[in-house]
This record gives sequence, structure tokens and C-alpha cells, in this order.
Amino acid sequence: MKQYNPVTAEVVKALQDVVGEKYVKTAPDVLDVYKSDESLAPSYWRTPEVVVLPANTEEVAEIVKIANKYNVPVTPRSAGTSVSCGAVPVYHGIVLLMERMNRILEVNEEGMYMVVEAGVRTIDIQNLAKSKGLLYAGDPCSSDSCLIGGNLATNAGGNKAVRYGTTRHQVYAIEVVLPNGKIANLGAPLKKCSTGFCLDQLVIGSEGTLGIITKATLKLVPLCPYRLDVLAVFTDLGKATALVPNLIKAGLNPTSVEFMDNNFVRSASDYSDLRLPHYEDGYYDIISIETFNEDELDDKMEKLAAICEACGATDVVEADDRVWTVRRNCLESTRVFSKVATSEDLVVPVTKIADCIQSLVEESKKYDFRVFCLAHAGDGNLHFQILKCDMSDEEWEKQLEEFRDVAYKYVYGLGGRLSGEHGIGFKRLDYMEKYTDPVELELMKSIKRAIDPNWILNPGKVISAD
Amino acid sequence: MKQYNPVTAEVVKALQDVVGEKYVKTAPDVLDVYKSDESLAPSYWRTPEVVVLPANTEEVAEIVKIANKYNVPVTPRSAGTSVSCGAVPVYHGIVLLMERMNRILEVNEEGMYMVVEAGVRTIDIQNLAKSKGLLYAGDPCSSDSCLIGGNLATNAGGNKAVRYGTTRHQVYAIEVVLPNGKIANLGAPLKKCSTGFCLDQLVIGSEGTLGIITKATLKLVPLCPYRLDVLAVFTDLGKATALVPNLIKAGLNPTSVEFMDNNFVRSASDYSDLRLPHYEDGYYDIISIETFNEDELDDKMEKLAAICEACGATDVVEADDRVWTVRRNCLESTRVFSKVATSEDLVVPVTKIADCIQSLVEESKKYDFRVFCLAHAGDGNLHFQILKCDMSDEEWEKQLEEFRDVAYKYVYGLGGRLSGEHGIGFKRLDYMEKYTDPVELELMKSIKRAIDPNWILNPGKVISAD
Repeated sequence: MKQYNPVTAEVVKALQDVVGEKYVKTAPDVLDVYKSDESLAPSYWRTPEVVVLPANTEEVAEIVKIANKYNVPVTPRSAGTSVSCGAVPVYHGIVLLMERMNRILEVNEEGMYMVVEAGVRTIDIQNLAKSKGLLYAGDPCSSDSCLIGGNLATNAGGNKAVRYGTTRHQVYAIEVVLPNGKIANLGAPLKKCSTGFCLDQLVIGSEGTLGIITKATLKLVPLCPYRLDVLAVFTDLGKATALVPNLIKAGLNPTSVEFMDNNFVRSASDYSDLRLPHYEDGYYDIISIETFNEDELDDKMEKLAAICEACGATDVVEADDRVWTVRRNCLESTRVFSKVATSEDLVVPVTKIADCIQSLVEESKKYDFRVFCLAHAGDGNLHFQILKCDMSDEEWEKQLEEFRDVAYKYVYGLGGRLSGEHGIGFKRLDYMEKYTDPVELELMKSIKRAIDPNWILNPGKVISAD
Repeated sequence: MKQYNPVTAEVVKALQDVVGEKYVKTAPDVLDVYKSDESLAPSYWRTPEVVVLPANTEEVAEIVKIANKYNVPVTPRSAGTSVSCGAVPVYHGIVLLMERMNRILEVNEEGMYMVVEAGVRTIDIQNLAKSKGLLYAGDPCSSDSCLIGGNLATNAGGNKAVRYGTTRHQVYAIEVVLPNGKIANLGAPLKKCSTGFCLDQLVIGSEGTLGIITKATLKLVPLCPYRLDVLAVFTDLGKATALVPNLIKAGLNPTSVEFMDNNFVRSASDYSDLRLPHYEDGYYDIISIETFNEDELDDKMEKLAAICEACGATDVVEADDRVWTVRRNCLESTRVFSKVATSEDLVVPVTKIADCIQSLVEESKKYDFRVFCLAHAGDGNLHFQILKCDMSDEEWEKQLEEFRDVAYKYVYGLGGRLSGEHGIGFKRLDYMEKYTDPVELELMKSIKRAIDPNWILNPGKVISAD
């Protein structure tokens, strides 16, 4: 296993020379803040030896050079909203905070793009685009707190991915500090390109293992003026999940299709003190449709209602604020049942989501934990929330391991993968090694070795260090 | 420079053992067929020492292992419709023909994908999708003769890229024979994924330098039942090209926006023996709009007409078969003026296309060749057809070199690139080395070295061998 040197006073001094004394933190209480993310998985947390806050790309590059010189690892960190321990410094060393690099450098309405530093909050990008009558279509559920750099590193998904794709589809170009400290500009603000290797997409989603993204040129698209959200209620799980491919095939081009199982319908309704249709036995699909004109919206709504009914929906109503409140409160509502929980981020082909949910819910009945299911159903992304409830720690770990082995094997058999939008991080590293095709895994490692021979950048994530 | 061994009788024997004697060709007249592509640039052509036709992925893998063992290069070749000398065996050695691997393995209507071998003709994929009421949206101009493997290798663009993106956007997954002879399955039939590096996109568009794509799982999308093509005629070049960003911003989501300058309007009209509006002074934009319902089409047509008129169009009429005949005959029509010609494939941000065309047309007046301009304007992709006419070979080479230096510098200054859809191949290799940012170039080379340490796969393309 890769060995690193400790962060010595000499390293700290070198970092101070780059960013200034004020922006190098070594106080234990500060370091403690950066040991974790939002995964609530203390066994994966690690405390950094030093935290640095660079002001610009050149400083990031210098920090990476220092890391190579002294053989200490660098873990880049955005807002720390990851739930996969992607920003946890597995080998300690340096945590590099992007939050000072928070400038929006250009909004080009004519060219429909925005140039931002990596530390800009996603919601600020969304709001600025909206104020210009445009849409930035990346929309992770944590958009009000996460930073765009983290979205890019994990290829974050979210609420609009069915129609607009994930974060990697919103990008024209990125500026990246490579593991050797050189600065690369990858991609270009072009609608098409056949000029060399597609390096921007290689770095996006690599979770900071192949480079630290410092800037991005983001695509903006026309903002749809018309929108309607529909709640389709089913009393049959299979029917509720079978709706999705029919919506896609009909050309309805929904912005999102969200699924909630009855566990979540009940718990989130209770938590929100709201009563929605079929509280006792309902499975919910919430479908958002956006259009550029009113007639088109009317037409799509008619088609949508017909499809929902043909698929066996019990109720098809407009999804008002109450529905979204319930949806938003899902995760929070499970705390009543269990303070300890873990979430899965499985993704399967859209046509398999009905089978997958049914099979895994059935499988979960063999265990003592409780499983609640939410899905970004329109893109096949399944979030199982697994609640420890009153299990012992030992049983919890043991049964979780058993369930995951069954579930992951099944999901890979369907053509699915471990993570749809949260990333592998540290949390899923062992499973990544176990379930990934060995040829693919070796290809990833050979690229990592070539680009980062000292294995300096974010070691212990995605693939294990040699 | 990288040195290879000659293809000896021992190598030929080893190849015969893999694919059978019948599928190993060494007759000079056969080898001669595979020295060129459709670039009409004899100075770039090279004759292979042997041509092999594998029947399946395993045979491709064995051939690549033989190439490594004997240190002979392998150049994969699809239909040879490239105009960038991407399939020319620069270092001679083995040309590997994909044409026997021409099976469509699965059409999944429910999952909306098709699994094909790399040697399937693109048009067969399009037609089969259409027969199922679906669309395969990759549509290079050579779709009736090109093979899907070549489309994937070059990230081919074509006629529908404005709305649907280029070939790389039509792909869920690929099977690839890596330069070490191992078989990798990259990507998955998923709408979203954050599980490891995006290796499928790295290999797609790498022009066979990082792996030989043997199979692909292609996305199918709902087929729009309504379509109308409009010809907007302008008598001002600036106005004709300024139309594009306005169409995009209005949310019209055109399938294609094609531009023809007046040189092409005249030559292709003459060649086709057809008279269209403003033959003498017209610049043409041909806009295709597709929708899922008739009202939406009517609405978009109204908007389109209004935008064209606001942009200064002289005529806005339906583009009938005559218009498409003229468009299709563009390149052929220039043969009257010059048997020798070369085409550029520059791409710039869509908002810069007006400036770019005007500046380069102006620049071209300083030279003795003639320049005709076609553009996939909706995606910023410019095809200059440069006609040698009666220049001497020496002057032609000299002036072409001068013009390219000015043009490429200018295009890169605008954020553009050398190739929008044809690829770098052998033809643009020197320019790639000259105009690419050195950090990006070195990153490409370090990945190539890591994956293909013997530099066996398609050497002399995209990046130069060490």
C-alpha cells in the first residue's frame, strides 16, 4: 500500500509561502471540521494534518507541486456535501478547500455559457442564469449548499437529469490542475469537436483523482416558460415503476420523474403533517414537464394523463407545494425510526427499475433493518435508505454486508452500477474493486499511474492505491 | 521516432492461424486498395504490408497480441470514408478490416437501444431503428456507406448534431480491444452514472489510437413524426450567419441548420441544373425542425419565419427536394473548377461563425486558390472547400500552408479547433502538434503511452509517436 510522509513544519511553511499564513490551518478544532462529510459514516472519517485555502489556480498548482515534493497527499474539498466520503482525507495530509475561489468570471448570454471558479455555489449559478432568462440545468438536491467543483468531480445528478443529463453534460470546458502541478485547459465552448482525446470528460467524474478542477465553462440553455408537475398515485408498485419507459417513448421528454414508495409516503407525510391521496397504500410518481409554449404543455398533459391512466394510476393530480414538501422531507422523516442509516445510490437501465425495486424490496425482508425506497425513476437511479433501527452494531454491519452483496450482484447483472450520482468516494471503494470488470479497473489504474505517478491526488477514492 | 519491424512470413502465418488463410491478404493489388481513404491526398497515403479480416472480437484481440509480439503496427479500418487519412497505415504493417463484423446483435425497443458490431453500416442502423418507430440520431453525410465503428472512432458529426449531438452522444457502451489485446466493456446502458472514470468517452473519438471498438450499444430516441425544412435566403453574408444563435435562444431546437455561401449556391445549382431564389447573390440557410405534434410544428414555423425576417432574410420558403439536391451536390459541383481540392473542418463557437466565415473569406482573397464555404452552421462547424484550380503544385502547397497558418491561429483564438467532425487522422497531425496546448498534448501522450506502451495501435494519428 502507498506510504506518504507526514506534514512537517517544513511543508506547512512551504504552504504558507504560497497562500499566506492566514490560509493555512493547523489548529485541531479546525482540522476536526474537515474529517467528515455528510455521509454520517464515522468509520470512514479521517482527520487532515493541514487545511489550505488557495485564492487562485496558480496557488492550487503550487500546492500540488509541494505535495509531490514532500510526498504528502492532497484531498480537494468543495462544500463537503458528499455522502460517499469523497472529500475525506483517507491518508490524512493536506485538505485543499476551494471555497475562496468563488468568482463568477463571465456570463455570456449570446454564447449561452457561464465561466465560474470551482468554489461557486451551484445555486448562485442557477439563479444568475435564471435572471438572464436562461437555465443552468445541473441541479443536485444539495444545490443550495454544494459547490460546482464538487458537482463536476462526482458528475452529480439531481432533479433535472432525465431531460438535461447530469453535470458532465452541462460542461463545455474545464481548467484543471493536474497531479504534476501543471495547468490544463480541457474541452472548448463548441457544439461538436473531433480534435484529440476527450480529456474533459475523463477528468469530470473522476472525483479529484486525476486533477483538481479549478474553473468551468458551463452550458446554459433556454429557460422553458411553462411547467406543470403531476402526481400520479398507484396502489401497485410494479405499475408505478412501469410508467417511466412509457413516458420516455411517448416523446414527453419529462424534466424529472421521481418515485416514492409507500414507506416514504407515510413517513414523510407524517413528518410534514400533510395528508396526500392514498397515504395508506400509495406509491407516488411525481412527473415534471416543461415546454416553450402553452399549447404544447396542454397537449403533453393530456398525453401524460392518458399514459398514467393506461398504466393503472389511481389518481392523477397536479403536484402542488404539499407534494414537494413531502418529497423534500423524505430523508429527514426517517430519523424518527433510526438515527443510524445508510443510503444506496444504485443505478439500473430505466426499463429494469420496476424489477429492481421489487426484487430488492423482497430481498430486504430477510434482514432486520428497514428499507425505504426513493428513486429518480426517470433515469433509473435508486436511493434505498436502509435504517438500522434497533439492531446491534455487529448485526447491522454483518447484515448490511450480506444485503449489499446480493443487491450489487443483482444490479450488475441488470447492467447497473454502484453509483448513479453520489460517486464512489472512500465509502464504496471496496465494492468498486469487487464489482468492476478487472480489465476496466486495470485500465483506470494505468491511467491514474500515468497521470499521477506519486498517487498524490485524492488517494483512497474510486480505485485503491497500488 | 518509433521503429517497427516488417511483417514477415512468420507474422503472416500467425495471422492466418487466427483468422484463416482466406482472410489474410498480401496480394499487391489488394494491399493497394487500402493505402488510401477519400481524402484525395496522395502524399498521405501508405500501403499496408498485410490486410486481415477478423470475424469476431476474440480474433481482433489475437491480432493485436501478435502485433505486440512482433512489433508491427495495426491500423483499424472501417469503410475508408474518412477524409483525414485516419485509416491510412502510416507505418505500413497490418490493416485490420472490420467489415466482417457486421451483425446487428439486438434491437431493444422497450429499452430503446441497439447492440451492433463495429462493421455494421450506419444506414442499416438508421433504417432498422426507423422501422421500429425510433431514431438512431447519428447521421454523418456518408451514412449510406460508412460503418458505425468509424463513426465512433472519429466522433462523427453530420446532419442532426445540432439537436442530438455527435456520435459520442448516441452511445451507452462500447466493447473495445485494448492495445494489450485485452477486451474491455466500457460504459453501460444507463441514463446516469458516477461509477469510475468515463473511459467510454475517452476511447470514442480517439481514432483507434487507444483501442479498437468492436461493439457498441447505441441509444435510440423517439422518432419525431412531424418535420418541416425551410430555406431562408439572405443577400448578406453576415445576416445569414447571424441567424443561428437567435434560433437556438428562441428554444426552436432545430435538428439542423446548414449554410451555403453564394459560390456553392451557384456551382451546385449549375451542376444540378436547378434555379433557386437569388442564384446571383444568395446565401442560404436550410433549417430543419422536427416535433412530436402538428400544433407545435406550426407554432415553431411561425416563430422561425419571424426570426428569419427579423434577421433580414429576403425569402423564407419551404425547402423542397430541389434545395436538398443542390445541397447534396455542393462538393461534386466544384470538380468543374478544380480536380484537386482540400477541405477544412474547422469548428468555432456558434456565436463566432459569422465573424469566422467573413474573416476567412476575406483572408482567402489574398491567395490564388478559390474558397467555397459550406457550414453545419447550427453547431459552428465550417467546411471550407479550397480549390487548387490552375495553381502550380509548389504554389498550391506554399499558399495553402500560409492560409492554414493564418486560419488556424485565428480559429484557435476564437476558442475553436481544427476538426469538428472529420478527426485529425494523419492529415492534420502536424497542425495538431502545433496548435494544441502543450500541457493537453502531453496529457494525451502520457495516456497513450500508459495504454499502448509499444505504440501499436494506429500510430501516426492524432498525436505523433515518441
